[in-house]
Amino acid sequence: MTTVNTQCRLAARPAEMLTASNWTIVEEPKPIAAEGQFVVHVDYLSIDPAMRTWLNAGRSYVPPVEIGEVMRALGVGHVVESRHPGFAVGDDVSGIFGVQRFAVSDGTEVNKIDTALAPAPVYLSALGISGLTAYFGLLDVGRPEPGQTVLVSGAAGSVGSIVGQIARIKGCRAVGIAGGEEKRRWLVEEVGFDAAIDYKNADLRKELKTYAPDGVDVYFDNIGGATLEAALNRLAHGARIVLCGAVSQYNDTPRGPSNYMQLLVARASMTGFVIFDYAKRYPEGIAQLANWLNSGELQSHEQIEHGDVGAFPDTLLKLFRGENTGKLILALGE
Amino acid sequence: MTTVNTQCRLAARPAEMLTASNWTIVEEPKPIAAEGQFVVHVDYLSIDPAMRTWLNAGRSYVPPVEIGEVMRALGVGHVVESRHPGFAVGDDVSGIFGVQRFAVSDGTEVNKIDTALAPAPVYLSALGISGLTAYFGLLDVGRPEPGQTVLVSGAAGSVGSIVGQIARIKGCRAVGIAGGEEKRRWLVEEVGFDAAIDYKNADLRKELKTYAPDGVDVYFDNIGGATLEAALNRLAHGARIVLCGAVSQYNDTPRGPSNYMQLLVARASMTGFVIFDYAKRYPEGIAQLANWLNSGELQSHEQIEHGDVGAFPDTLLKLFRGENTGKLILALGE
Repeated sequence: MTTVNTQCRLAARPAEMLTASNWTIVEEPKPIAAEGQFVVHVDYLSIDPAMRTWLNAGRSYVPPVEIGEVMRALGVGHVVESRHPGFAVGDDVSGIFGVQRFAVSDGTEVNKIDTALAPAPVYLSALGISGLTAYFGLLDVGRPEPGQTVLVSGAAGSVGSIVGQIARIKGCRAVGIAGGEEKRRWLVEEVGFDAAIDYKNADLRKELKTYAPDGVDVYFDNIGGATLEAALNRLAHGARIVLCGAVSQYNDTPRGPSNYMQLLVARASMTGFVIFDYAKRYPEGIAQLANWLNSGELQSHEQIEHGDVGAFPDTLLKLFRGENTGKLILALGE
Repeated sequence: MTTVNTQCRLAARPAEMLTASNWTIVEEPKPIAAEGQFVVHVDYLSIDPAMRTWLNAGRSYVPPVEIGEVMRALGVGHVVESRHPGFAVGDDVSGIFGVQRFAVSDGTEVNKIDTALAPAPVYLSALGISGLTAYFGLLDVGRPEPGQTVLVSGAAGSVGSIVGQIARIKGCRAVGIAGGEEKRRWLVEEVGFDAAIDYKNADLRKELKTYAPDGVDVYFDNIGGATLEAALNRLAHGARIVLCGAVSQYNDTPRGPSNYMQLLVARASMTGFVIFDYAKRYPEGIAQLANWLNSGELQSHEQIEHGDVGAFPDTLLKLFRGENTGKLILALGE
């Protein structure tokens, strides 16, 4: 096993789109556990759109990553050294380990995972933050009722693909929006959406009229921009918009939905949602998601890229180029 | 009494700002009541920002006023002829009578008012749609709790001035936003707001920091635009935005709040609200508002302009020029 801890650190805040100059790859010695600590060998990194927002200075739902800091990232790995009574060498764990080969931890917000129940990457996907985001965002904030229409943007992404599946489980009509014919077909044929719209090659407003003829009761938004505007124009009476993300806005000057007063026309609400607020209810969410996985009602979809820590910057850009279906994960290997 | 029914009809839809060419003043014979109908002499017209939105074609919360139609307006008046068993000559009534001297009605959505309890104009103000909008919008949608900060834009308007007073009655801190030093002082000294901000002559974001140091728990928005953006940047955790109007947007190309993702940062919601949905609960609202008026806890503020039906177009423009404090009413006189 290597004794080098390769790390990806933030070198400079991006103006709009990320470039190589925002990052620096450094090598440090493998860390040593102090009393009460353990060292994790990071095996898989969760690649998330929210990462882009963590790079901006200013008020947000978590503090920004500081210049010179190791990039924040969720990951799964295994314990390779321990002076902590609760964690032993060989334990599989998930946590916010950062974009690096080795992480040292005192156990705060680290969970053991059972790779006999599901492969490790699933703990970053359906049994991780993506699944929980879909679960609590859709059910608690969106509150869909059987027979209602649930629309989700970024539908081919990690959260979106699970939102659609949970909507179906709950007896709703699931309509997805994604970019490209391949994703559109994947959503309908593989993931089980009732309908999907390729926003790049279709008239979004016209297709929404076709696939949500009675209006949209719940809109789960990961994208913002023109997609949000199209959804606002199609809201059913009393509709709920779940604001989960705004990927279209992260690398650009943000733009508000010019037709936001459709919220008044439709007597609708738009509510911001951050999964971390549900930390106390994670066990409930995980248990339900695991049940659905076991019964086959829910499927976890991952796109696993293989590379080392230095591959992180390019892998992150895949998200913003729309080059992923399902959860994007970087497998660091040995 | 005149036998001429002067009417203001919509001649052409406005592009952005209203001009004289949008209207035509016509004269018709005074209408005659058929069996089951009565004729109202309109004494006072309610002049409302929402009128501007009724002039646009397309989907909204009420159908648009059609070209050639008498302009829609709430009013109070008295019955001058009746072949209706429920209404007698001399009855004082409120209803959607339109911008005209005489209205004929079958009683639908017409209410008798008691001018011994309060002067007729108050039934267009605190005991009318403005009071009800403030009451249900603030309490049902905004759900303020004692000690919380309630911010309202268009605070010197008919709805805003009542929102601030109800907030105070409910034990909240009331902060108003209005245009001009005169209105600012009026809100604090006459209406009883805890603080008011003159957005025309102050740095709105800085003042909000001063007057809402712990953030805004409820923002009651009548204005939209830059005012909404400033409020979004100042939301407390779990804040509720009540979308009641967007006067800044009505005469211009609409613009969305570019920082709407602050809803996510603050875990806040923005909910559209239309008073007509509360029709069944109007008696509850009116009873409570009347109690507060009687006890002196609530005051109704009207700005009554005197003129004939032909004065309507200019009177409406006063709203968009910010030339009113309290409820703007056109008294048609005899």
